[in-house]
Amino acid sequence: MDKGIEGFSKLTKAQKIEWITRAHFKNPEDAKNLLLNYWNNDSDIQKKHDEFIENSLTNFYMPLGVAPNFLINGKPYTVPMVIEESSVVAAASNAAKFWLNRGGFKDEVLDTLKVGQVHFLFNGDPEIIHSFFKKNKPQVLEVTEEFSKNMIRRGGGIQNIKLIDKSHLIPNYFQLHVEFKTADAMGANFINSCLESIASKFKELAQNDSKYLKGEGVEVVMSILSNYAPKCLVRASVKCPVSDFIPENGWTGNDFAKKIIQAVEIAKKESYRAVTHNKGVMNGVDAVVLATGNDFRAIEAGVHSFASKSGQYTSLSNAFVKNDIFHMELVIPLAIGTIGGLTRLHPMVKWSLELLGNPDAKTLMKIIAVTGLAQNFAALRSLVTSGIQKGHMKMHLLNILNQMGASEDHKKAAIIYFKKHIVSVKAVGEFLKKYSLK
Amino acid sequence: MDKGIEGFSKLTKAQKIEWITRAHFKNPEDAKNLLLNYWNNDSDIQKKHDEFIENSLTNFYMPLGVAPNFLINGKPYTVPMVIEESSVVAAASNAAKFWLNRGGFKDEVLDTLKVGQVHFLFNGDPEIIHSFFKKNKPQVLEVTEEFSKNMIRRGGGIQNIKLIDKSHLIPNYFQLHVEFKTADAMGANFINSCLESIASKFKELAQNDSKYLKGEGVEVVMSILSNYAPKCLVRASVKCPVSDFIPENGWTGNDFAKKIIQAVEIAKKESYRAVTHNKGVMNGVDAVVLATGNDFRAIEAGVHSFASKSGQYTSLSNAFVKNDIFHMELVIPLAIGTIGGLTRLHPMVKWSLELLGNPDAKTLMKIIAVTGLAQNFAALRSLVTSGIQKGHMKMHLLNILNQMGASEDHKKAAIIYFKKHIVSVKAVGEFLKKYSLK
Repeated sequence: MDKGIEGFSKLTKAQKIEWITRAHFKNPEDAKNLLLNYWNNDSDIQKKHDEFIENSLTNFYMPLGVAPNFLINGKPYTVPMVIEESSVVAAASNAAKFWLNRGGFKDEVLDTLKVGQVHFLFNGDPEIIHSFFKKNKPQVLEVTEEFSKNMIRRGGGIQNIKLIDKSHLIPNYFQLHVEFKTADAMGANFINSCLESIASKFKELAQNDSKYLKGEGVEVVMSILSNYAPKCLVRASVKCPVSDFIPENGWTGNDFAKKIIQAVEIAKKESYRAVTHNKGVMNGVDAVVLATGNDFRAIEAGVHSFASKSGQYTSLSNAFVKNDIFHMELVIPLAIGTIGGLTRLHPMVKWSLELLGNPDAKTLMKIIAVTGLAQNFAALRSLVTSGIQKGHMKMHLLNILNQMGASEDHKKAAIIYFKKHIVSVKAVGEFLKKYSLK
Repeated sequence: MDKGIEGFSKLTKAQKIEWITRAHFKNPEDAKNLLLNYWNNDSDIQKKHDEFIENSLTNFYMPLGVAPNFLINGKPYTVPMVIEESSVVAAASNAAKFWLNRGGFKDEVLDTLKVGQVHFLFNGDPEIIHSFFKKNKPQVLEVTEEFSKNMIRRGGGIQNIKLIDKSHLIPNYFQLHVEFKTADAMGANFINSCLESIASKFKELAQNDSKYLKGEGVEVVMSILSNYAPKCLVRASVKCPVSDFIPENGWTGNDFAKKIIQAVEIAKKESYRAVTHNKGVMNGVDAVVLATGNDFRAIEAGVHSFASKSGQYTSLSNAFVKNDIFHMELVIPLAIGTIGGLTRLHPMVKWSLELLGNPDAKTLMKIIAVTGLAQNFAALRSLVTSGIQKGHMKMHLLNILNQMGASEDHKKAAIIYFKKHIVSVKAVGEFLKKYSLK
């Protein structure tokens, strides 16, 4: 197999590029030059980025944009957003501006508990393993002290540990279910290190006490944190008198509020809609998660599983009118950090955190949740008024023009023309054809 | 509010940077220089990237790594992966190599149907709206012909449209539920454009036919595609004789297979575990989704909602032994494209697609699913053998050393030392302290 290779990871970066461009590209030189063109001029900076992951060849550019005018608990923010999709940053900025004039966003962190589990099998009397665990709990916890010292000093650490009998699900299946606080760190390494040492101690104690366990040892399957974080929650909200909505489309403020609420109600009852409703929330959430060096796969897994916790996948946001006041809120789990991981390593992450005033983890949870709520509000506003395509395609216009290879002159003319016409790939193509003939 | 601003989006990029660095940074010059340092030297290329989104200030580097040795349906691939998390590319590469020698990956696309809906209210007899829809269906579909022409030529287009009565969920709530095929495009713009014109025609027809509808008009709430895509599915699988597993940890191949299956069984029954199990799948999936210019929020929403469709959030993969053959498979929805969006605009996306042999959408679905399965297998293998931390921290060692500002000499020494010692932030700190005293 000429496109397979032995020992690839041991090659230098230059050798990797050499092999890969020769094995896979029609024009290896062009393919190589493109990779090199995306390197940073400063070789120290480039080296830093190369060392984040394995087999790194170059930098993949994601645009970093900013959304100003966020007022959060009375404090102004400009929010950094890393996202490749057009119209998301514009939507966030518009929503921020809209609510800036209506008291801004309020939010609060509801809790910050994270979960990790040691999954094990014990083929014996559940009462015996329960009493064994009770007896040995202090010793089991003791092994985590080494890892926990710093974390406890910063206000975190293990909050509780319990043995759960899950043998009704799988024969002999039990868990050590552990809850953690991790202060300003996301805490994955801390949690996993604690769990692995707990598991190893627990197994060792079981081996030493095999008489008591009546010869039935403890078989550890795996030890790992959970990204399901239903106790690591933040709530973001906005409110304003219904009369504060500017009449649009011939609607009163009341009509507008009613439409938004209808759209949210549909997302609460209908999963096909809920998934996309929440996807809109995540456009905002992930853009800030990425900019601040957090792990978006972890956040996505936590948020969508939380949306399905009732047994039916549903909307993460809610909207209602009470005493002529319109309320909208979003509650989501966000297990993120502002120290550890890439936060101090990636220069643009450091920059983004400084832009936000170097927030602690709880403050960053609030900023992220607010951006999600802003995005959700902006999407619903478009959907119930002009439809999503008008604004989106307007924002996408430059991408379409670039794809068609339009010149700067043509682009300028198209931007003016499409202020008053509906954007579609076809319409842009026709415009360019006509314009070129002039 | 000195950190709020009017008309920000209308400023030039230079003016935006000027304002933002002065308003938010202690040292505005440094903050500005950092942004500039991440610009591409070629101003045309930089402009292209700036135009993807609004208020773009610079490029956020994500590392682009590659995982060679994937054998998929008998064809070799080197997979491009954009991800910031260490150890993911290494895990994918190891799993690819492992299965390369055991027949590689097999996969098939099960279906490619995508869904969009017009959500509307009708306050009247359901039978009347049903017969109204039946009568007007051809006219409603006719308005999409303009958008559909190209799509139909490419093998896509609207597959069916039906009226669904959801008034048991919300009073007067109905849907036009439309299924689409979108050939090699992700198709969001196509679907939304079709839906909006369907909605507008449907409303117009209802207005014209108000006598028949007995004065009860159709009130459209919104028209939008769904990211829930349970009929846009791909299955990736591997298999090998149990005896083909290399004995590790004193285990036989059979012991190893049993452990992997236990770990999958736990993820099938226990949601706390399932969420992280699937998060591991998504580490692989998203890395390829990003590299190929697709929208990872859409994919994440589709995959996790699919994982919860039974009412209990569960594992996306399955593993079992049958006739001494170990099988592992993954079935996930993937609504992706290889044309449209950023695929022709982002030079590194074009590069990534060429690396994969310029696949069509179905082939890319298979490659993405395989990478997810590889990641899942690699994570489980670590979890049930040495634990996740050993490998992960080894990969993370360079990040820790960089964070501590270690010199190149110190880094080299640490890499040698930690080949035989367990990596932790504390251990690395102690090593550097000792090494510096020498």
